[in-house]
Amino acid sequence: MAKTWGGRFEEPTDQLVEEFTESISFDRKLAPVDIEGSLAHVAALKDAGLLTASEAGKLSVGLRKIRGLLDRGKLPMDSSMEDIHTAVETALTKAVGPLGGKLHTTRSRNDQVATDLRLYLRGCVAEIVEAGAELVETLRKKAFQERAVLLPGYTHLQRAMPVTLGHYLCAYAFMFSRDLDRFLATWERADALPLGSGALAGVNHPIDRLRTAHRLGLKGVVENSLDAVADRDFLVDFLSAAAVTQMHLSRLSEDLVLWSSTEFQFVTMEDCVATGSSLMPQKKNPDVAELVRGKSGRVFGNLMGLLTVLKGLPMAYNRDLQEDKLFLFDSHETVTASLRVMNRFLAHTHFGNVRMDLAAQQDPTLLATDLADVLVKEGLPFRQAHEVVGRIVRYCLAQGKRLQDLTDRDLRIYSPKFPKGTARELSARRSVEQKKSRGGTSPENVKFQVGILAATLKRLRTRIPHEKMA
Amino acid sequence: MAKTWGGRFEEPTDQLVEEFTESISFDRKLAPVDIEGSLAHVAALKDAGLLTASEAGKLSVGLRKIRGLLDRGKLPMDSSMEDIHTAVETALTKAVGPLGGKLHTTRSRNDQVATDLRLYLRGCVAEIVEAGAELVETLRKKAFQERAVLLPGYTHLQRAMPVTLGHYLCAYAFMFSRDLDRFLATWERADALPLGSGALAGVNHPIDRLRTAHRLGLKGVVENSLDAVADRDFLVDFLSAAAVTQMHLSRLSEDLVLWSSTEFQFVTMEDCVATGSSLMPQKKNPDVAELVRGKSGRVFGNLMGLLTVLKGLPMAYNRDLQEDKLFLFDSHETVTASLRVMNRFLAHTHFGNVRMDLAAQQDPTLLATDLADVLVKEGLPFRQAHEVVGRIVRYCLAQGKRLQDLTDRDLRIYSPKFPKGTARELSARRSVEQKKSRGGTSPENVKFQVGILAATLKRLRTRIPHEKMA
Amino acid sequence: MAKTWGGRFEEPTDQLVEEFTESISFDRKLAPVDIEGSLAHVAALKDAGLLTASEAGKLSVGLRKIRGLLDRGKLPMDSSMEDIHTAVETALTKAVGPLGGKLHTTRSRNDQVATDLRLYLRGCVAEIVEAGAELVETLRKKAFQERAVLLPGYTHLQRAMPVTLGHYLCAYAFMFSRDLDRFLATWERADALPLGSGALAGVNHPIDRLRTAHRLGLKGVVENSLDAVADRDFLVDFLSAAAVTQMHLSRLSEDLVLWSSTEFQFVTMEDCVATGSSLMPQKKNPDVAELVRGKSGRVFGNLMGLLTVLKGLPMAYNRDLQEDKLFLFDSHETVTASLRVMNRFLAHTHFGNVRMDLAAQQDPTLLATDLADVLVKEGLPFRQAHEVVGRIVRYCLAQGKRLQDLTDRDLRIYSPKFPKGTARELSARRSVEQKKSRGGTSPENVKFQVGILAATLKRLRTRIPHEKMA
Amino acid sequence: MAKTWGGRFEEPTDQLVEEFTESISFDRKLAPVDIEGSLAHVAALKDAGLLTASEAGKLSVGLRKIRGLLDRGKLPMDSSMEDIHTAVETALTKAVGPLGGKLHTTRSRNDQVATDLRLYLRGCVAEIVEAGAELVETLRKKAFQERAVLLPGYTHLQRAMPVTLGHYLCAYAFMFSRDLDRFLATWERADALPLGSGALAGVNHPIDRLRTAHRLGLKGVVENSLDAVADRDFLVDFLSAAAVTQMHLSRLSEDLVLWSSTEFQFVTMEDCVATGSSLMPQKKNPDVAELVRGKSGRVFGNLMGLLTVLKGLPMAYNRDLQEDKLFLFDSHETVTASLRVMNRFLAHTHFGNVRMDLAAQQDPTLLATDLADVLVKEGLPFRQAHEVVGRIVRYCLAQGKRLQDLTDRDLRIYSPKFPKGTARELSARRSVEQKKSRGGTSPENVKFQVGILAATLKRLRTRIPHEKMA
Repeated sequence: MAKTWGGRFEEPTDQLVEEFTESISFDRKLAPVDIEGSLAHVAALKDAGLLTASEAGKLSVGLRKIRGLLDRGKLPMDSSMEDIHTAVETALTKAVGPLGGKLHTTRSRNDQVATDLRLYLRGCVAEIVEAGAELVETLRKKAFQERAVLLPGYTHLQRAMPVTLGHYLCAYAFMFSRDLDRFLATWERADALPLGSGALAGVNHPIDRLRTAHRLGLKGVVENSLDAVADRDFLVDFLSAAAVTQMHLSRLSEDLVLWSSTEFQFVTMEDCVATGSSLMPQKKNPDVAELVRGKSGRVFGNLMGLLTVLKGLPMAYNRDLQEDKLFLFDSHETVTASLRVMNRFLAHTHFGNVRMDLAAQQDPTLLATDLADVLVKEGLPFRQAHEVVGRIVRYCLAQGKRLQDLTDRDLRIYSPKFPKGTARELSARRSVEQKKSRGGTSPENVKFQVGILAATLKRLRTRIPHEKMA
Repeated sequence: MAKTWGGRFEEPTDQLVEEFTESISFDRKLAPVDIEGSLAHVAALKDAGLLTASEAGKLSVGLRKIRGLLDRGKLPMDSSMEDIHTAVETALTKAVGPLGGKLHTTRSRNDQVATDLRLYLRGCVAEIVEAGAELVETLRKKAFQERAVLLPGYTHLQRAMPVTLGHYLCAYAFMFSRDLDRFLATWERADALPLGSGALAGVNHPIDRLRTAHRLGLKGVVENSLDAVADRDFLVDFLSAAAVTQMHLSRLSEDLVLWSSTEFQFVTMEDCVATGSSLMPQKKNPDVAELVRGKSGRVFGNLMGLLTVLKGLPMAYNRDLQEDKLFLFDSHETVTASLRVMNRFLAHTHFGNVRMDLAAQQDPTLLATDLADVLVKEGLPFRQAHEVVGRIVRYCLAQGKRLQDLTDRDLRIYSPKFPKGTARELSARRSVEQKKSRGGTSPENVKFQVGILAATLKRLRTRIPHEKMA
Repeated sequence: MAKTWGGRFEEPTDQLVEEFTESISFDRKLAPVDIEGSLAHVAALKDAGLLTASEAGKLSVGLRKIRGLLDRGKLPMDSSMEDIHTAVETALTKAVGPLGGKLHTTRSRNDQVATDLRLYLRGCVAEIVEAGAELVETLRKKAFQERAVLLPGYTHLQRAMPVTLGHYLCAYAFMFSRDLDRFLATWERADALPLGSGALAGVNHPIDRLRTAHRLGLKGVVENSLDAVADRDFLVDFLSAAAVTQMHLSRLSEDLVLWSSTEFQFVTMEDCVATGSSLMPQKKNPDVAELVRGKSGRVFGNLMGLLTVLKGLPMAYNRDLQEDKLFLFDSHETVTASLRVMNRFLAHTHFGNVRMDLAAQQDPTLLATDLADVLVKEGLPFRQAHEVVGRIVRYCLAQGKRLQDLTDRDLRIYSPKFPKGTARELSARRSVEQKKSRGGTSPENVKFQVGILAATLKRLRTRIPHEKMA
Repeated sequence: MAKTWGGRFEEPTDQLVEEFTESISFDRKLAPVDIEGSLAHVAALKDAGLLTASEAGKLSVGLRKIRGLLDRGKLPMDSSMEDIHTAVETALTKAVGPLGGKLHTTRSRNDQVATDLRLYLRGCVAEIVEAGAELVETLRKKAFQERAVLLPGYTHLQRAMPVTLGHYLCAYAFMFSRDLDRFLATWERADALPLGSGALAGVNHPIDRLRTAHRLGLKGVVENSLDAVADRDFLVDFLSAAAVTQMHLSRLSEDLVLWSSTEFQFVTMEDCVATGSSLMPQKKNPDVAELVRGKSGRVFGNLMGLLTVLKGLPMAYNRDLQEDKLFLFDSHETVTASLRVMNRFLAHTHFGNVRMDLAAQQDPTLLATDLADVLVKEGLPFRQAHEVVGRIVRYCLAQGKRLQDLTDRDLRIYSPKFPKGTARELSARRSVEQKKSRGGTSPENVKFQVGILAATLKRLRTRIPHEKMA
């Protein structure tokens, strides 16, 4: 296969070198956006008088034909072609003859691949935000349904205070909605056209780059050609947003794994989202949640990988950058799949409301802070109230009693300030209902949060990038 | 030292455990924001009727006194105090008596530290954006001055095309201005109050969180208490922005190291920003640039470190989170110092305009693309023009000639399409001047870019967060 | 403060540059090994005739005096001194006059710091292996004590099969003993002297490097001077061993956190190794385990950080390498402290043998694999036996019965092959006792493993490096 | 496709879940070792009386048939099969009937995959060590050839002292030979059989695991079944060795990229190992070296990825571990390909001995340290000699003179101690010849190093693991 750069070379490329340097085995994913970019480039060449209308017409028809070949899996791609750009140009020249050799006028693979990457990124962001929005929607709806279900909240994985399940689900919904904002902001910062930057210095011809940008649905142009071909910070942003998202997913997964254990039994999976053991006949495992958690390894590794690639590279383009694509593709696919499968998993997972409720109600000391607050209302400095209740807790644990079962006499041994009937008033239900101040776990608050989430989602969805402006 | 949680414990903490778990040795950096947050909390407690006006007054006076102690380096902090929150409360109680024990009413260290972190982050962002803006300003000004200086542009570290030094400097200025936007966006996403979330569930008292937020100059409140105490995604954002910035700095450094080599001699450092060798008397090394480049290790490591900490943590607060601060402090300080020292380094570094110019003018084949463009203008498909010029390049290299020294006859051996006087017209100066289309390297374009940068900087500066709103 | 490289410089170093490039604020930890190396260097200079016996004597006395100053915290170190090497040479020259200027003969800070690092590393490895060996010893002893305690083993955090607590503890003991081997092997690969490599090219004088190596207790010399000053792979090895160790610690911590939850109650901490909450009076948290787990972030980040520093550095020494020390110091201290505190934590933590036993005995389907094995012994292919028992499990779960409570009739509905009395024979105790084949969980096997561990520990301890050979 | 764990499940697996959890799309690489392990397991089952000789024979024949299918690309593998283990068992059952269901007797996929991984790792190590040994061999031979070629050595990328090219090449040869030792040590630590550990607890049957180990060419058995199925530290070791190797490769690449620049011209690539530009006809780029350097991103990312996966996992097997394979496969393939292509690249790259020599000879101040050493030999303390020569360097730079061109009078202005004819004696050649002490850059020393490398290589090669012991 002829290279696009044969002239000055006297020998063919070594086979091992050809295999080592090719990218067609993976950058083929860029084919649709590569063709899209080339179509816009043809229009720009025509506008600049570098192609006649007829030439431009033939090239466009040729490119659309190649798009057809691609869609039918018939576009020839083998490793001797180096990369997707060469594969497309080769097919084009086969289709339209030497005219195909005009496509690359005033363009370098450096600005071409930078353009492809941004167009591809736009699609990745759109897809992830759509998948993420569905997950947030699911969490939001479940939160509304379960807004009054009690369970013990945990800190340090020790029971801390009663919370509502809806509140818990909203917490994750808020995290994921921030993640979507992060992806959208990433795109908004990257929404500019590199094409027309040439290899590094700009081009000799009067190309109207802004018009090309608008043709491709992009907001503006990258204002410096060296920057356009040399930097990949927008990919780091994307990989970082992916890492944060997968981190949040890994935490939700951790909770789901814990909650599906025999010890917790706070969730039950339907058979269709669980898997078994080839050896142990009784097993029903939360593999989905484990894998989502485990995949944070890949997604973090991709971020670290790209940063490593970029570290210390001199200006401008260096071939090291070829490696950027693998990180992008992998994080995009992993995060998208994880968001979708988590959504499916939640759809087929049932919260053990009775178990949760029991755990919250029966815990002997879960209401200790509420008990301390009683003393605070009686004027005791909180620090002293904390100390007093700490000692009562010790007593309960020794006696195997719950705080709410203590008598007034029991309590007054520790502080005379306890009003009559204090212990009787303690309940997990009342505890959560008291958490009315903004952000607290009361069912009313959950309703309020669910509303905020709906509005946030709506706003986020309007920002999802579309392929073309017009 | 009395713990804040003594009541239920019968034994003192093991010495080794105390040393292992303390954070006072590093979270003391949070002292100013911790006190600031506590002052706002006192006001909120008063508003909610949990403190009388007189109590609130005394606590406020006490806290300001502690702030004074802190400023004079007299606030007692030792490892038995666990953390800065305990140190402040202890000092307060010493100052105002048992009333100090009311400060922690309806507050947990979980929402307190989350608040401290956001307030501290605000300062970090402000400082970095200010330092970064100065660097952008320096680059921008130098770019304007050097807008017409020629040098060879490089891809793959091979000479590619002539560019202007101003264009090159603008490329970095654009990168850094995106970095500043990244930091500001990070803050804008984090600009909300966690306080009032309690340990995890919200609080029992009618605290007006939004008012507290505004008192602290924050835009809103974190709408879910679990989210408020459990997540640190805003720190990942910050560490990621820091990583991208240090990556950009590492690339500029790489160029500066290369350029200061004997082989390039494109920059000369003043003695005041260079260092020498303890063994080799002649050495004058670009240590500043090397260290800036090397520090990307720490900054990338901090990002990876925090992601690792967060991966797989169950809801809500876990003590693992104590580790977040070290990453924040280190990346903040490293990036700030690197931006500042790079600015200073550039101020005392001189570009070897003559060397650069000579390299651009004398290079035998740097104008090959311009030569191919001549054929393109004559109607030859670019791919053929490239092939033709490739062969001419081979000839020049074999003969030791420059393209611009070839005769018409020389050229026409390769293609009859070359117009008369083609080679004579080739010059590095003309090459860059032709790069007029937007984003290209022509001096005019550099002027345009410098203007855009000025406007961008102005906009960025208006977004720098200030400590207090009112 | 005079630099060691003043001659060719006409201006003093810029203040900001001086602060940015100094390392004395952290490389002071190298002071003892720096002095140790200098003492050996003095001896080598004397041997080579570059110092008279009297000069060597004075320099040695001077260096020992500085060591004394250091031990009493009186060695002057400020940031104008750049680094510890300059600080020592400065103090020496103050002590012995211009003769101090002979110390650096035929030595560069490049080979000096590489030597310091290896000597320091030796101490780090020794310390970690000693701390780790104690932890293995603790686990080993506890394993022996608890060799017969039953608990459910987990895969996917779902109950899988009964295991013994001793077996479980041995698993961690084996992991940590491999970690110690890893550290020792790291040292054994690094056990060679860089000194005598000069700045990069070796030295002009007939220095007997091997003799210096032996003086310092090192096995050999680094055989190539460029390699000696440019590489830090031995530090990557160390940081990688640290990462694996902290990863293992994080897993043990995860188990301890889980096991100390109300839901598991498999471990109970004594008060002295637990911490409380400033808000919730009842809390008793496993902070030690959480922090050990969280510190994996730092330790992983350090590894990634150093790899980033080294990536793409040209030969030979570059100032970027100055950053290596911080990673080494931090991982060394973090891992050492984590091993020690985990040992202490285990010493004050009690296993809930009764809870564990109950969980293993009462679980309805934990013995499903044993039941399938009954059919295998009756000749049924395992895959069919698995299927049969899977259906029985379903029946048990629906009926709320344990496998061991089924009647022969119940079982024979699913397969006629079940021998009489099958279910009655099922027990967790019998299950673990049957796991007799090597590596299995039977108490006998635990005893065997404890023996292997003892022998392994003994072997590992003989490899702990000592400061001096003779 | 029937799962291996159907019995207790009432619903089929959700399509999305099936696709998300399958590993057959990548773990198919384990097929050969999976079959190898199964053959050994069949033999073990026969020995233990769990299979008759005839059954064992049929299963072995069946497995060999599957191996044949695999080799011809005819083994059915689709995502409904979950993983390679299921694919093999399914094909076996198709081949031999229900007897196939006996293969999994007393085995879990947990111990099976752990066994597959170790067998696969052995092959990876063998392949890498072979490829690496060839690279070391090439460097070693080139070093011998070029042992007397002079070039300037660099520190901080500033010229430091003359070195020989052979010495430089040896430095890399030593680095890579340590890398090979690292891989071999990794394998030696991992050389033990997990099979027979069951799902986590060991097995009920009297399997002779050591015999199985020996059948598979493994040294011993993993002594604790929980450890055997839960840990992947041996893969971290491998990924860490890969990271160090790729780091070393990235440094050699950096040098090659630098050296192939117009400014250095220390190496010239043959056309067959260089690539061109699609836009700029004159370009000839060192893409191979750039890509090798860039691939450090992937290899570092893989290490970070696996550490992230493992962090905080509870005992024992968790599905997260499925992710381990991708890191292993990718680092193995990347490092192997990089070593091979670097070897090829060096074979077709020529060192610009004349350019190097000229650079070393003509540099005005490269011999400053040698000049200082003259004063040292005259008894001046080195620190003063350094200062004196520093001032002479300043003079040379100002006057545009080389140190070796100074007259005695010139020198004696700075110090009367300079012997007659000092400057005339200075030469790069003499400088390297003086570096005779062990590890120095003299040609003799290079010869010595080449000998050490040969011996080291020989020793390393004897440790390359082979598939079978007998």
